[in-house]
Formats: sequence, C-alpha cells, structure tokens
Amino acid sequence: MSEKNVYYFGGSQGEGNSSMKNLLGGKGANLSEMVNLGIPVPAGFTISTEVCTYFYQNNKTYPKTLEKEVKEALSKTEKEMKAKFGDSENPLLVSVRSGARVSMPGMMDTVLNLGLNDVTVQGLIKQTNDEKFAYDSYRRFIQMFGDVVLGIDSSKFERMLDDVKENAKVEQDSELTSENLKTLVAGFKEIVWRETGKKFPENPEEQLWAAIGAVFNSWNTQRAITYRKLNSIPNEWGTAVSVCSMVYGNMGKTSATGVCFSRNPSTGTKEFFGEYLIDAQGEDVVAGIRTPLKINKADSLAWAKNHKISDKEREEKFLSLEETMPETYKELLEVQAKLEKHYKDMQDMEFTIQKGKLWMLQTRNGKRTIAAAVKIAVDLVEEGLITKEEAILRINPNQLDNLLHPTLDPKANILVLAKGLPASPGAAYGKVVFTAEEAVLLKEKNEPTILVRIETSPEDIAGMDAAKGILTSRGGMTSHAAVVARGMGKSCVAGCGEINIDYASETFKVKDKVVKKGDFITLEGGKGLVILGKVETVDPEFSEEFQVLMSWVDEIRTMKVRTNAETEKDSKMGRKFGAEGIGLCRTEHMFFNSGRIMAVREMILSSTRSEREKALSKILPMQKEDFKEIFRVMNGFPVTIRTLDPPLHEFLPQEENEIYEVSKEMNVSKEFLKEKIDSLKEVNPMLGHRGCRLGIIFPEITEMQARAIFEAACECQNEGTTVIPEIMIPLVGHVNELKLQKEIVVDVANKVFAEKGIAVKYLVGTMIEIPRAALTADEIAKEAEFFSFGTNDLTQTTFGVSRDDIAKFGIAYVEKKVWENDPFQVLDQVGVGQLIKIAVERGRFSRNGLKIGICGEHGGEPSSVEFCHRVGMNYVSCSPYRVPIARLAAAQAVLRKQKN
Amino acid sequence: MSEKNVYYFGGSQGEGNSSMKNLLGGKGANLSEMVNLGIPVPAGFTISTEVCTYFYQNNKTYPKTLEKEVKEALSKTEKEMKAKFGDSENPLLVSVRSGARVSMPGMMDTVLNLGLNDVTVQGLIKQTNDEKFAYDSYRRFIQMFGDVVLGIDSSKFERMLDDVKENAKVEQDSELTSENLKTLVAGFKEIVWRETGKKFPENPEEQLWAAIGAVFNSWNTQRAITYRKLNSIPNEWGTAVSVCSMVYGNMGKTSATGVCFSRNPSTGTKEFFGEYLIDAQGEDVVAGIRTPLKINKADSLAWAKNHKISDKEREEKFLSLEETMPETYKELLEVQAKLEKHYKDMQDMEFTIQKGKLWMLQTRNGKRTIAAAVKIAVDLVEEGLITKEEAILRINPNQLDNLLHPTLDPKANILVLAKGLPASPGAAYGKVVFTAEEAVLLKEKNEPTILVRIETSPEDIAGMDAAKGILTSRGGMTSHAAVVARGMGKSCVAGCGEINIDYASETFKVKDKVVKKGDFITLEGGKGLVILGKVETVDPEFSEEFQVLMSWVDEIRTMKVRTNAETEKDSKMGRKFGAEGIGLCRTEHMFFNSGRIMAVREMILSSTRSEREKALSKILPMQKEDFKEIFRVMNGFPVTIRTLDPPLHEFLPQEENEIYEVSKEMNVSKEFLKEKIDSLKEVNPMLGHRGCRLGIIFPEITEMQARAIFEAACECQNEGTTVIPEIMIPLVGHVNELKLQKEIVVDVANKVFAEKGIAVKYLVGTMIEIPRAALTADEIAKEAEFFSFGTNDLTQTTFGVSRDDIAKFGIAYVEKKVWENDPFQVLDQVGVGQLIKIAVERGRFSRNGLKIGICGEHGGEPSSVEFCHRVGMNYVSCSPYRVPIARLAAAQAVLRKQKN
Repeated sequence: MSEKNVYYFGGSQGEGNSSMKNLLGGKGANLSEMVNLGIPVPAGFTISTEVCTYFYQNNKTYPKTLEKEVKEALSKTEKEMKAKFGDSENPLLVSVRSGARVSMPGMMDTVLNLGLNDVTVQGLIKQTNDEKFAYDSYRRFIQMFGDVVLGIDSSKFERMLDDVKENAKVEQDSELTSENLKTLVAGFKEIVWRETGKKFPENPEEQLWAAIGAVFNSWNTQRAITYRKLNSIPNEWGTAVSVCSMVYGNMGKTSATGVCFSRNPSTGTKEFFGEYLIDAQGEDVVAGIRTPLKINKADSLAWAKNHKISDKEREEKFLSLEETMPETYKELLEVQAKLEKHYKDMQDMEFTIQKGKLWMLQTRNGKRTIAAAVKIAVDLVEEGLITKEEAILRINPNQLDNLLHPTLDPKANILVLAKGLPASPGAAYGKVVFTAEEAVLLKEKNEPTILVRIETSPEDIAGMDAAKGILTSRGGMTSHAAVVARGMGKSCVAGCGEINIDYASETFKVKDKVVKKGDFITLEGGKGLVILGKVETVDPEFSEEFQVLMSWVDEIRTMKVRTNAETEKDSKMGRKFGAEGIGLCRTEHMFFNSGRIMAVREMILSSTRSEREKALSKILPMQKEDFKEIFRVMNGFPVTIRTLDPPLHEFLPQEENEIYEVSKEMNVSKEFLKEKIDSLKEVNPMLGHRGCRLGIIFPEITEMQARAIFEAACECQNEGTTVIPEIMIPLVGHVNELKLQKEIVVDVANKVFAEKGIAVKYLVGTMIEIPRAALTADEIAKEAEFFSFGTNDLTQTTFGVSRDDIAKFGIAYVEKKVWENDPFQVLDQVGVGQLIKIAVERGRFSRNGLKIGICGEHGGEPSSVEFCHRVGMNYVSCSPYRVPIARLAAAQAVLRKQKN
Repeated sequence: MSEKNVYYFGGSQGEGNSSMKNLLGGKGANLSEMVNLGIPVPAGFTISTEVCTYFYQNNKTYPKTLEKEVKEALSKTEKEMKAKFGDSENPLLVSVRSGARVSMPGMMDTVLNLGLNDVTVQGLIKQTNDEKFAYDSYRRFIQMFGDVVLGIDSSKFERMLDDVKENAKVEQDSELTSENLKTLVAGFKEIVWRETGKKFPENPEEQLWAAIGAVFNSWNTQRAITYRKLNSIPNEWGTAVSVCSMVYGNMGKTSATGVCFSRNPSTGTKEFFGEYLIDAQGEDVVAGIRTPLKINKADSLAWAKNHKISDKEREEKFLSLEETMPETYKELLEVQAKLEKHYKDMQDMEFTIQKGKLWMLQTRNGKRTIAAAVKIAVDLVEEGLITKEEAILRINPNQLDNLLHPTLDPKANILVLAKGLPASPGAAYGKVVFTAEEAVLLKEKNEPTILVRIETSPEDIAGMDAAKGILTSRGGMTSHAAVVARGMGKSCVAGCGEINIDYASETFKVKDKVVKKGDFITLEGGKGLVILGKVETVDPEFSEEFQVLMSWVDEIRTMKVRTNAETEKDSKMGRKFGAEGIGLCRTEHMFFNSGRIMAVREMILSSTRSEREKALSKILPMQKEDFKEIFRVMNGFPVTIRTLDPPLHEFLPQEENEIYEVSKEMNVSKEFLKEKIDSLKEVNPMLGHRGCRLGIIFPEITEMQARAIFEAACECQNEGTTVIPEIMIPLVGHVNELKLQKEIVVDVANKVFAEKGIAVKYLVGTMIEIPRAALTADEIAKEAEFFSFGTNDLTQTTFGVSRDDIAKFGIAYVEKKVWENDPFQVLDQVGVGQLIKIAVERGRFSRNGLKIGICGEHGGEPSSVEFCHRVGMNYVSCSPYRVPIARLAAAQAVLRKQKN
C-alpha cells in the first residue's frame, strides 16, 4: 500500500496523471492529467482505490492518515477555487463521485452540491444573487444525500415535491418559486428526521465523510457485484472517490454549459464541433427541453438556413458561442486542440462556463461511426500524431461490416416488427415472398423481394440469390440461410422465432399483426431487425481513407486472405475486396443450378455404377465450365476446390408436391422417388453419409469432379491463365479415407494430363473438421499436401452441438454465461482451438512447412483470425464481404503479437 | 545373415526348435521340435527365411553355400530314411513346402512326391508291390510340378484325365488301372513339352531346385501380397522351405492315416480321441468318402451302438486302431501325451502309419469350443502344467459370450432366411410380431415372440422386454435395438437389410419369401442369422470350471467391473454375473413404463414452469421407488445415476394413429400435439437439445430427479441398506454446464437431508462424451467428483459419425480396411483413445485420485477393457451379460501389462 492516499488536482498541478487509472480510477486520473496540461479544471482531489481495498479489509475503516490528507487536499482546493468549505460568505461546494479503473456506468453513486446547509446556502445566494437557484441546489442536495448516503427511498422526496407543485398549481420543477423551494428544504429535512431518527447533518465535513463512505459502500451493492460478474471485473479492483469543486453553468447570461467534439464523429472531418446552452446545467443540453445552440458561427448559420430561421431571429435567440462569448470560444478552441494532440485521438468533451470562466469537466476519446473512425485514423497518421500501426489498431474490424453493406437511411422512421438473429449484415427492403420460385419470378420483373422461410435448404439457392434479403423463423447464426446469405453479402435475419409463418395462407404473423405475400418489409441484417414497410437504404462507398488504410493493412499482415466462392460473380467480388485466391469452392452449390439438378438427381436415383457414370457425364462439362470461369478470375491465385460434401438427400425434393413434379420431370413413378428419398433419410445427417464418405462409396463422383477440375485447369493454362488448383477432400477422419480419395484424384490427373499433353501443378489436401482428424494429423499429413480447418463442422463435433438445432438452448447458454460467445460465431479457442493447435503442430511435424488455412465461418471473425495468426496458419478464407475485415484483423494480429 | 542356411531334422536330431519360427517358419520349427522330443517324424530339412530374403535381394539367386548345405542335409535324410534320392531300387521321395512365421493358409505352393521319374517309379513299385499306386503318385507329381513349378494351367491336365476316364468308362480316379495311369504319365509329359517347349525334368535334383525356387517365388504372387497387406504381414519376413520325406498311409493293410486330439475339443474332457482309416491317404479322412474309424476301442463300441451296428459287423469293418494295431496305438498314446505335456496344451495331431511304422506329420494347439477351453485351462492348472495366469490368458473373452446365452440346438437342421448384424448374442425363437404392443399381449398368453421392426425407439422398450428376440432392418451394432437388447441379454439381429418390412400388411419379405405375423422364426444373435421356423435352443450352464476360472480372474484384476442397469431385474442379473455396482443407470428408461409416460408427456406439453413442476411431481414417487429397488439390490455397491439424457421428442408419439390416440388420452387437440411434436423436431437430434442441456433449460427436471434419488437414498439408509449414489450429469462440454447442474443437485440434497434428518454420502460427476469435455477435463474436474467415459457418444463426435446412420458406409469401410474395426464395437485407441488419455491425465491433474470409469458399449469389449486398464481407469461398466467378459478382460489386462 502506498503511503499516499489522496491526490490533489487544481490550478496547474495534478498529483496524478492518466497512467494512474488503476490507482485513481479513469475519472480521477484524467482530471489530474488535464490539470497538468494547464487546462482549467475545477479543483479537487481523488481518494485512491487502495483506500477502498483497505476499507473492505479493515471492517469499513480508513487508513489513519486519511483524514489529515483529505483536510490538506480540501484546503488546497479552497485556495485554488477561492472559496471555503462551509463558509457563510463564499462557500465551496463539491461533488463526490465514484470512479473505477473501467467505466461501470450507473452502477455506483454520486452526490452533488455537497457542502450546502442553512448557513452556506446564504453564501451561495450572496455569490449568485439568485435565491431560487440556491434553494433549488439545496433541496436537490438533501434529496440526493438522503437517497445515496442515508438510504431513504427516493419516492418519499418525489411525493412531497409533487404535493408542493400541486399546491403551487405548477407543472414544471422550474416554475417553483424560492418560497416553494424553501418549504421543500424544510420538508425534506423532516423526511430525513422521520426516516432515520436523526437530523439532517448540517456540518459539511460530516456530509463529506458520509458521502465518501457511501461511495465506497456502493462498490458492493448487489447490482455492482452482478455487473462485475457479468463483465469479468475483479472485486479486488475497488473504486476511487473523486471530490470536485462544483461549478455552475446556470449562473446567468455569462454562464453556459455544453459538449463538443474535436472532429466530426459522423464523418471524421477535422472540424471543431459542438452544442451549448446559456444559463443552463449539463443535463439541459442532453434533455432536449431547450434547443441546444451551435458552438461555431458557421454551423449556426447553416443550421438556421436549414431550419428556415431568419437572420434576425437567429441573432435574437440562436447565436453561437463564437458570437456570444468570443474570448471563451477562443479558449475552448485552444483547449480542444491541446487535448486532441495530447490524447492523439478525437476528443468528446464537456465544459461549463461559470460567469465567463471556462471549466473543463471531462474529456474522453469520442465515439464515432466506422466511416469517421477510418478517416480520423488515417488523418491522424498524415498529421504525424500516430503511426500507421496505431491507426490500424484503432479500427474495430467488426464495425467495418457497416462500411461494406447498404445501411438504413438514418433519417427514416422505422417500425420494428420483430427481432431475430443478426445473421448477415446490410439493409434491404422488398416484397414478402414465401418460395424461392416467386423470388426468381419477381426478380425477372425487377421487383425486390424478401424471401421468408421457416428455414432454407440448398434447393432455395436460386431464390436466395434473386431476393434482396432473407428472413427465417428457425436456425442459428450458422444455419444454411445465414451462411449462404453471408456468402452472397445479402441481408439476412435468421431464427426470428417471433414470426409465425403459414405457407398455406401465404402470410406470417407477429403476435396479431399479419403480413401477407406482396407486403413490403425491410430487414436490417446487422441488428436482426424486421421492419414493417419500405425503408430507404444508403449504399456503401469506399472512401479514399479506407483504401489508404487497407493498403497499410496489406503491408503489415503476414497471413493471406482468401475468399469462399463458387461462382464467377462471388470470385470477382472476392477479388474486389482484396482476396488472394479461393479458400473454399463448394462444388455442390454448382449442382443446384437449373439444368444440372436433374442430372444430379438422375445420378442419385441410379442403381448401378454405370448408370451413375452416365448421369455424371452430363454434369462434367457444366462443372468444367464453372471451374474455368473461376480459374480465369483467380488468374495467378490458388483455388481450393472441395469435392462433393453434403448428403445426397439434400438434392432430392422434400415436399409432397415437389416430389410429384420431380417424379414427372424425371419420368419415374412417385412411389419409386419417395422410396429413394426415404432410403436416403438419416437420423443425424450431419454425422451421416456425406463428405469423403460419398466419394469412397461412389468413387465415380470423385472421378468426375477431378476430371472437371483438371480438364478446366489444362484448358485455362493453354489460354495463358495461371491456374493453381488445390483439391480438398472433406470430412476425413482417418488417413485411409484421404489415401483412397487421393489415389483417385492423382490417377485422373495423370490421365487428363496425358490426354491434353500438358501438366498443371496441383495439390491434394484435406479439411480438418472432425476431432479425429486433428488428433491424427501427423498420420493425415503424410498424405495431405495442405490442411484447411473447417471450423463450422469442427465446432459442431467438438461441442457435440448441431448448429441447426442450437436455437433451443444456444441463446440461453450465452445469456446464462455458460458460453462466453456463440462458438459458431467466435472460435472457441479453449476447446476447438486446442484441436487446431494439435493439428497444426502434428501436421507440420510430419510434413515440413505444410500449408494451413481455415475456411469455416470463423475465417472472417476478427478474434478468430487473430488466433489463426498466432497458431501459424498461412491463410484465412471467408465470404467475399468479410475479406476486408479479415485483412484488417490479420494485420492487427501481427501488431498485437509484436507487442507481446 | 546367419552362416547356416539349412536345418536338418530326423531321427532324434533336429537342428531347429520351436523358438525358431522366425527363421524356419512355423512348420519347420515344429518339425524340428518334435524330432528333438524323440517323436518319429519323417526326416528332412528346412531352408531358412533368410535365404528367401537373400533370394529377393540378389536377383533371385542363392547364397553360395546353399547347394552344398542342401546336399548334406539330403544325404542325412537319405541315411535316416534308408532310401536314396533318385534311386531305382529304394527311392527317397520328398515334399517341398512353404512355411512362413505365421500361417498363410493356401497362399503359397507345395509339391508332393518329388523325386519320381521313369527310373525311380520302378523302385517305388518294388518297395510297395503296387504298380497302380506308384503310377498314380507319378502322374500326380507331374501334374503338381507342372502347375506349381512350370506354371502350366492345371485345367490342361484335368481335361486329359477326364478324357482317359471317359475312354476307360470309369467315373472315379481310383477306378483307373495301372495302364490308364501309365498313359496319363506319358500324356502329362507331352503337355509339359508342348506348353514349355522343354522336356519334363527327369533328374530329381533338377526337380528339387526348381521346386525350391517355385516356393520362394510363390512368396510374391499377387494373392500372397494381397493376403499379407490385408493381414499386416511384412513383406520382409519371407518364407522358409521345408523338404520332408514322403510317407504313405496307403501302402496296404499295415498302413493307415488319421487325426487325433489329446483331449475332447467339444467338452474339454481329458480323453485321447481321434479317427483313422486303414490303407488311406490323409485327404481320405477329411473327404468323407469312407467312414473314418475310431481310434479307441471304447469309442468304437459306443459309436457302433449308437448307429445300431452289430458286434459282428463292427469287427469286420469298423475295428478301432487300438484293436487293429495295438502296438502302434500304444505308441501313439505315448506320443500324444508327450506332446501335450511338452506344449502344455491340448494338441491336434496328424499321423501316418506306413507299413506298421508310426510317423507324426504335424502337431498344433487344437481348436476347441469355449466350454472346452475353460475346462482344459482349469484342468491344466490342476494338473500342474500351467499357472492360473496362463490359464486366464488362454481364454478369449469374446468367446465367453457363447457360454452366457442360449445356443441353437447343434443337431437341428436350419434354414437361414437372411443375415444381419450380430447385434446381441443368444438364440431365440418366437412368433413374428410387428409392434411392441403385440409382443406384450402375446407374452401375457405365454407365447414367445420375435419383435420385427424397421428400427426401434425408446417407446418400444416394453415390447422388447416382452419379446424373446428383436430383428430390425435398419441400424448398426450400436443402434437403439442393439444396445437395449444387449443390455437385456436378449437375442438381436440388427440392420438386416435383406428383409423388407411392410407394417401395413404385417409381413416381411426376403426376396420372394413372405413371412407373416404369427409365423415362427428363430434368431441366432451371435452370428446375425434369421432362421425360418422354430429351432430348439440349449440353455447355458455355468460349469464348475467356469466358476473356478472366474474366481482366479477376480483375484488378479485391479479394475472394478460394474453393470449398466436401470431395473431391479437387470441389477440382480448384473450382481449374479459379478458386477460390483452400477456404472450407468439411465433414468429415462424408467420414463417409458406405462403409467408414467403420460406424466412425462404432460411435462413436455407444459408451457410454464409450474405446469411442468406439477407433471414432474407425479413422476417423482415412481422414480423414487425404482431407485429404492436398485439401491437395495446394490447394497454396499455404488450406483451411478445419470440425469435425463435423450431429447424430449423421443417421449412423444411419431406415427399418425399414435398421435391421435395420445391426444385423446391426454385430452388435448391433435393439432396442438402435432405442433408440439413439430416444434421439438431436430435436424440432428444426437447433437441437439439433450443431456445436461435439458436440465439447464428446465432446471426443474434435474431438481425432481435429484429429489427422487436423495429421498430414495435416505429411506434406504434408514432401512439399513448401504447406499452409495453417484449422480452423473450427461453431455457436459463446458465446465459451466456441470457447475449449474451440480448446484441444483447439491441444493436438493441439502434440502432432502434436512427434511429427513439424515445425510447420505454421494458424489456428483459427469460423463466425458464430447471431445470438448475431454480437452478441458482439467477445468471440468474442478467440479466433477468422478468421470465416466460415454464412449458411444464420444466415438460419434470424435469420428463425426452417427451410429444410427453408419449402415450406408460403415460396413464398406471395414471391408475396404478404411477402418480396422467398427469403432462402435472396438474402441478406437488411436483417435478416441487419445481424448481419453488426455481427459484422464488432465482430470487427475486437477483432482488427485479422481475416480474414473467407462460406461459406453466398449466397457464390455475385451481390447477396449484392456485399454481402460492401461490408461488407469478405476472401473468399467457394461451390460449384465458382458460382466464376466469384462472381468476376464480386466484380469488379462493386468497380466499383459506385467509381461511388458
């Protein structure tokens, strides 16, 4: 324990500074820091967090020296503020506030106007010439002290206040007269007497010590304990207590109060910016009872023009601070510049002008939009205030998402109908449709649609592509709808249990509200909102600063970033967002295009190998063309192609009428088709006949796919395209599975190369998506030329949780803090991460320098990307729209690792 | 490389012995060993496996000294056999045989009668006075040599043989005259000439070296290579070549050949035992053309009596060896005793008597039934030949199964209708029924049934209990039907894809054969046979020797063996088989009993907590009674009770008519019930809302179960029963899950103890059945007071394979050797085993001496039990009928670990 318990600040001397947050709390440390910068701050002192610790360890007593230290600091404060605590002429009034290392908003208590009593209130009247103000402050103090320090139920004071207002026949507190307020002071003191059996303490020192004790006690209220538990804040940290001189912005025409920013928090433009009110208290600016005025003259003029306010009216009622108090404005301008330069970031400040004297009450790094964050970071680098590295670390990769998708028009009024999971960001409106077919149909007529389904299946892909947004009532953040929508960069709200879909009547209900097919709704996928009607959206634009930032990001990161894509369109999108190749091309998505789904079904319905081969030969040329398109877009970059993965039943129709139609189209009996569908049904399809298990039982499927890849590769190479195919075998759990599939791929490659008279370099690797694969990675790496972690499935199997069925308990698990995060959104580094580390180590042990990447959903989630960097992966791969996020996260990972 | 390449054996001198199998192959080593024991073996010599290695490493040449060594050994052989290789008067004939370290039956080649040519055949005639025999041997030799050494297609010889027989108008080879055979010899030589362009080699030495080369070459035929690959035999081992003098049992009335056992291989009784034929070759005994005679007089008399053969007829045609050749019989009696004593095990021997002289051709440990194996092992200990430990190691635990279940009457003729998976051993017959209800109904009338279902669900439990056996057309070795049937010790054939069940018409079809409800079928669950009609079965009996063996087993093993049981009946059965407690009591099985299923459904259909609690309070007294019954049976032994595990939808009806009936019974609308069922549907129920996830969302379920357990425990303890309850929380993946559930259990325990005024010692632990639980076992052990590995689910999640859906690829995986074994039958030590090791180590790291067991199906599988012992588990738990197997395997594990 330090020998010093109390840290004074005031004038130009602060005994603390901003590095002492642990000891003085955030607020106390920053107040000292500002003082040290020569910025006018109402004097005061901070009692350290160590006193709090002592308090709890010593039966709620204080260190012996504390009283003396407080007295000394108080006397310095009096000297600086030229006022005296308890004085009848010029009394010093103070606030007593809590302040822990980290902000715990609203959790602990504050007492304002402390020091008032029947004597000092007279001094306050003398100083302000405002009896009403003085008694109002006095009655507020008694109420606050009564509540916070004496533990009297606040409603008792409120009720008396209401009675007095009723008697006075007024509605607003501000309409009460001095006499009314005097009555209240007397009445409030009676309440204290009645409730506590003791008189209200008139002695200011007694008031002070009682308030300090109350703040320390408030560290251990139930709500504070719960808050700390929820936010993992150790109980041992304790709170500091800051005692600050009161200053008032409501002391007449030469007083004012306001908030300001050193740069525009919406756009990031470097312009001083803020609002103020003359003769007002801080809460008035926020409360919106009076219209706050602009600080700058230019802003004021623009605002008046905008609101069609005449010059005359403006000059009467809405003058800027620059005009009303030009000297103080100049001082504020200098202070804000100094603070920004000092803190090297945009500042959000609160100030009060008391009788012409500027006091800064608070400064902190300002919150801002992501667009502003990018601009400010880049500008600060160019202004020489921070380094590129610092700039990169200041951007929250998750927020980048908002830069990459359309957003709701911020001016629009919205009526939120329901809330679901924020499955894929972006805003979109459209007419409600309930089938993929209708979405496609309306798209042909250029009508925007929102596809509403209980859940989606691969059969809906065309409709999802045609719709502007997707809304499902079932499924989690990694349900089919969510994954596909994110891949497409399309707005999606998933698992919205509040909506009740009735396909038969083509409506959905939210409580009593019925939405019909053709009605407009709007989705806000980043927040999971379902909004009634059509809300205009704003398209994203990449600013110059964004491009600059991303160029720095690319200089620093060491991991490559690829995209998951299976169409020419997505591949191009990925390239546009900076992807350096494809990390996952899911070939089955190609199977659903109309024209080929019939051939796929023909293959599935075949009962002999030769029938299957005949059907496959119809798919071959189509898949080949797909691959050629992708290879051309990815000229010079690797393309990882996964062989067929989903269980075959996903390609067959499920609903009665679909079955009928397909049976007609395929010229088989409905019974035959149904029997086949039944025979393919699985209890747990996720753990069933899929992945390489398909290729092992039906080697001809792998053969066809390998042939399509290698023919495409040879033909593209002949055209002059640089092709780097990487064939990826999914769901391997035993090295023998990979061995068998690799034999087929290599065999087909050799055949195709012989036929074409040309050879293409390629790799054969595997996904690590089953615990057993990770555990036996040394064996598997003997065959695999690369690993790609399929963390979606790896998370499913490691947790034993189906992402399709997580809804019933997953949300509760996060709420009850069983899980810190949804493990399908944020990689579980503790469990799944162990398997990844094991696999990386053992894989590289068997095969030096083994290329390793990730292609699960986590490849675009910042904390997971950082983990990938730490364990030494070569690349991450994610949906096109998340590529910039992954690039940024990869660069931050480098910088954070350097720091440690 | 040794300097010695050739090892002579003959007379009383063998240069090798039985420990030299690596060098001389199994056959060569044993021949030398017999010689060294002074047992008459036809002389010969073995060329070592090292020569084979040299042969392949040196371009198919031999070590320089080999020719000389062979010559010397041959000359010793001539001397011993008093015959000369290539001699015209008394020629030595030899066989040339392959022989690797391990038997590779039929994989490599053999040449008999080598040494015959136009000259030596005359010598053979002189020696045997049997021209026909000599020429028959000669033509056989040419055919064999042509095929094996010269590579001529055997059918060419066969065709000529057919032609000659046709010309001679005979049907059997044995009917050919000397002249016919001479013609064949000439013709065969012509074939050789025509096919190879070379004359048949008349020079015996040339014949010998060609045959030796052919045997070495046969090591690398495609079939031998494939066989080795499938059986993991290294290519480097190579084969030895044994050259043995030929002896003949078909040289007239004083010659004979036979096979014999030193004890009865069916019963294990210590009695010399065998069959023989006079004037016959070895294959005649096996071929069954002539009826083999008994070796012992007593056996012969008994046999004759049995077959109603008169004394006179027996004396004319069926005399025993004891009677026909008493001296040789005596010699054989001594030889077999010597061999058994030497090898310390029951011997299976082949012998030939050539002109009154006994020659032993082979001895090996005889195959036997499990009953015989147990008796022999115990008897050998009592005879002082082997130790208890050796006896224990000689019993294959898997075979014990046959001792514990009824078997098919071995005398019955059976008509196998179809084959499925051998899901649960034992034979049973009954009338075919297709619903659980019918099985229950017929049981009341004392009629045996076989329950035939596509698959079973927990709803069928009562019917499965009522039926004698269960047959399913779908599902694997760990499907619901299989697991439950094994638990009940009931015959079950699962996943029998050949049968096509039609519930509507109450029939099943196998190809064209239709089996109707009420028809009798019989199951042989140990082999997976479905048999038409009623086949009588034989009940198991525990022999005295079995009891003795098991008592030795219990002295040696260090792991406890518990049983999985949830009824009084199963608990008693487990105790009878030696279980030391219950390792898994699945409380949900208790939910299905009629009378309580309605309350369970009421709970599921509840929409508020208080409704659920009301329904649960109806179940409470019933569960409590169940627990009391079990505690009483397990007096003094621990009882591990798992809280509710399966997803709730398993308790609701699935089929249309059931839904209708249940809705009526429950007095809710069918629509409501259907909606509820729909809302509980899951895509992957195995990974869905089950296990502790139920108890976390519905804490009142865990509360009720904990209360039932503790009330039962207190009441039983008051009665004087020693209760040791262990409450097990299933499907934990994160320590927080266990923490939350444990809090509930402890809280209920304290309440109940206070209410009852008595306390019971108990533990709260968890199943480790999810990879994440194993990986974070250190965290989990901070809360868990014991671990129990649920290796069924752990295997499912570690492999990413659903045991319900494995049928589509699992069998092919084992066939294609992707997997060595079905991982649901034999624990995958490489993958799943790693997780177990990690969990054991980390669990004990956090909590010293943590109690650890296994309760998955693997707990009764011998190699898995051995693994459990190696990693240091405290106990294994398995279904009652497998308890003796687990006990034996646990003892073997101790002995094997001591050896290493």
